[in-house]
Amino acid sequence: MERSLVELLAKKRDGDALSAAEIARLVQSYMEGSFADYQMSALLMAIFFRGLDDAETVALTEAMLHSGRVLDLSSVPGTKVDKHSTGGVGDKVSLCLAPLVAACGVPVPMVSGRGLGHTGGTLDKLEAIPGFRTEIASERFAEIVAKVGTCMIGQTREIAPADKRIYALRDVTATVECIPLIVASILSKKLAEGIDGLVLDVKVGRGAFMKDETRARALAEVLVRVGTRAGKKVVALLTDMDAPLGCAVGNANETREAIDVLHGGGPADLVECTLALGAEMIVLGGKAATTADARRLLAQAIARGDGARVFEKMIDAQGGDPRVVSEPTRLTVAPVEVVVRAPVGGFVASVDALAIGLAAVVMGAGRARADATVDHAVGISVCAKPGAEVGAGDALARIHVHAAADAAAIAERIGGAFVIRPEPGHGPSPLVRERLGA
Amino acid sequence: MERSLVELLAKKRDGDALSAAEIARLVQSYMEGSFADYQMSALLMAIFFRGLDDAETVALTEAMLHSGRVLDLSSVPGTKVDKHSTGGVGDKVSLCLAPLVAACGVPVPMVSGRGLGHTGGTLDKLEAIPGFRTEIASERFAEIVAKVGTCMIGQTREIAPADKRIYALRDVTATVECIPLIVASILSKKLAEGIDGLVLDVKVGRGAFMKDETRARALAEVLVRVGTRAGKKVVALLTDMDAPLGCAVGNANETREAIDVLHGGGPADLVECTLALGAEMIVLGGKAATTADARRLLAQAIARGDGARVFEKMIDAQGGDPRVVSEPTRLTVAPVEVVVRAPVGGFVASVDALAIGLAAVVMGAGRARADATVDHAVGISVCAKPGAEVGAGDALARIHVHAAADAAAIAERIGGAFVIRPEPGHGPSPLVRERLGA
Repeated sequence: MERSLVELLAKKRDGDALSAAEIARLVQSYMEGSFADYQMSALLMAIFFRGLDDAETVALTEAMLHSGRVLDLSSVPGTKVDKHSTGGVGDKVSLCLAPLVAACGVPVPMVSGRGLGHTGGTLDKLEAIPGFRTEIASERFAEIVAKVGTCMIGQTREIAPADKRIYALRDVTATVECIPLIVASILSKKLAEGIDGLVLDVKVGRGAFMKDETRARALAEVLVRVGTRAGKKVVALLTDMDAPLGCAVGNANETREAIDVLHGGGPADLVECTLALGAEMIVLGGKAATTADARRLLAQAIARGDGARVFEKMIDAQGGDPRVVSEPTRLTVAPVEVVVRAPVGGFVASVDALAIGLAAVVMGAGRARADATVDHAVGISVCAKPGAEVGAGDALARIHVHAAADAAAIAERIGGAFVIRPEPGHGPSPLVRERLGA
Repeated sequence: MERSLVELLAKKRDGDALSAAEIARLVQSYMEGSFADYQMSALLMAIFFRGLDDAETVALTEAMLHSGRVLDLSSVPGTKVDKHSTGGVGDKVSLCLAPLVAACGVPVPMVSGRGLGHTGGTLDKLEAIPGFRTEIASERFAEIVAKVGTCMIGQTREIAPADKRIYALRDVTATVECIPLIVASILSKKLAEGIDGLVLDVKVGRGAFMKDETRARALAEVLVRVGTRAGKKVVALLTDMDAPLGCAVGNANETREAIDVLHGGGPADLVECTLALGAEMIVLGGKAATTADARRLLAQAIARGDGARVFEKMIDAQGGDPRVVSEPTRLTVAPVEVVVRAPVGGFVASVDALAIGLAAVVMGAGRARADATVDHAVGISVCAKPGAEVGAGDALARIHVHAAADAAAIAERIGGAFVIRPEPGHGPSPLVRERLGA
């Protein structure tokens, strides 16, 4: 006799592994309504305590993936590779990375998210570009990837709807911080893109979802193992998120900085993050044998302007104004600049990414709640990164606001994110802390 | 700043104790709708894994208790004492116990439940009495207790409504088997009766909710500790439920057997269970100094017919036909008797209470689902209890059905509940396994 759904819930509660068929049945029953929200939340809490093994996590990933539509990219030739970041402050990498990797011959179909809490989102940054649309029908998405090399859209209702519902439930039932559930949520959305390979940027540090390196490594390991078991080529990098990535925080501000990278500029850590992730994507995509070779291709794509051209074409295909790439001042950054100055001279020991990210939310650049809107123009520019020497009164950061009065409370908050010591420290920690995967 | 409800959920998930105020807030928010079913079920699952300490269990009990009305029995003089059984097969003790204890001068206000699954319920047995009503307004309930000495009603909507909702949720979220939740559920209902003392009959064995003695003892210990902390006099007995209690199973059939006890008859184990629990109640009620003295009072109440007279008065006060006490054949037992015979001679080693209870459900004497109706007339009479010597062909049990055809499948099932061995065993295990409490 088939077990009842409550019996399956009790099975997981008692620490026994569920079969792939049982997990598929639970997810399907949830979507059909015969397994209620209050039963799913009890199951999620049981999973929080009992965990899921790799086979169960693969099964949950696939059940959520197949609750919706898998994008058909068979019309796009080549090995399709995407990147996913677990989120941080100032993380505008996708905007420069995808065009550069595409310019090197690896198609990058990318489904991105919006900012929530202190972490920003790629869609919000793209929407700082006048006219840019992130809602694109899936047939058109495939066309743009085939023609331009990359396309960046939001999660449609067709993509992993079970993940969308389960994620919303986790958010209000204290079951977010659970590695197998995080892994299944990330991979179900990414696998729905019809990709062949995936590079994961697992952020670790103060401004990351995983503040602790052990937990971040555990997440990266499970992502690589489960993604590989699900038949994809998967690599993960553990990258630093103690301080904001690059200098720019805020939407238009970050898009400008990503464009700087395409033109050969940009802060060193942002460039390094882009090259490190891009090289892995190009190797997975079969366009280079080693990451060293891949880095040379990326450097060439920057030097020749190929990445910038791909970004222009993508913006054009998605309804935006492509002139922002050659004329970044077309991206409206709020006109009033308030400077946060160093109270004493010395060396910047740290810049608290979480504090900066939360300040950006208060300014309106981010969201406290998922249904809030963002102001694309406001932002923060970090002028003194960890390791920098500053004199008393030097600029630590500039705040971009509509009126000086808006910055009063924020300035103090941002100043508090900087720790200045009289002696030089170890300098900034290396951006890539660790690499996991084949 | 006050913590959000999700933060309180996370606090319990992480193993920290919730304060009484926090537990009260969660239960109140649940009843008001700002803490949803899916959040309560996640909390219940977190409690399943993390437990509740005694202070938390008291707080949950009181929060559920105060979600409704506490019956006002201040008009009833004396120390009011009730009994609660964790449920079993053939457990008709309440029906003879309450009148006997009341006859000894201790008022017994009793709120009982219905049968579910293999265990029977007092209300169903009482409703086998023509005209008997278990829905009585609380003012009238107090009047009957004051005048007659006892009254037996069902849980009204006013009594611990939070327990009612939470219990329904536990039932479908695999969070029933959790000692602190069981304790809070039992005590919130019992404390709502306005009692001063409580004797708990924690059943242990095959036909009990707790099959394992260690778990049953743990439940009894927590019930006594938490009930005492909540300001009540509490004693618990661990009693045997490997075999059905007494001989009769089924509603009218059991009510007849309970009346036998009031008249000085009845099977030895049922009489012993009644006297053991009754003696504890009388001591808690202050009408005897020792259980030995209390047993003498109970024996007198049987011999003089005082218990039978109280039961008659109670039935009369609750709209039933009191003549059933002197003329038990007025209780309609189904007319066709099918005898289950011993396939071989020997000694009855065991009678599986669970198997008998499940057979009774199939016959219609019990409920598979809470919304099912029961047939008061059908039942089973066990003729050979554990330890009895039987010859091949002797009656093991009699099945009371409306037509012989109804008994065909059941007879085999009931026969399978008996284990007959060629050698005599240890005899029946002692009914009271252990006593806990002051």
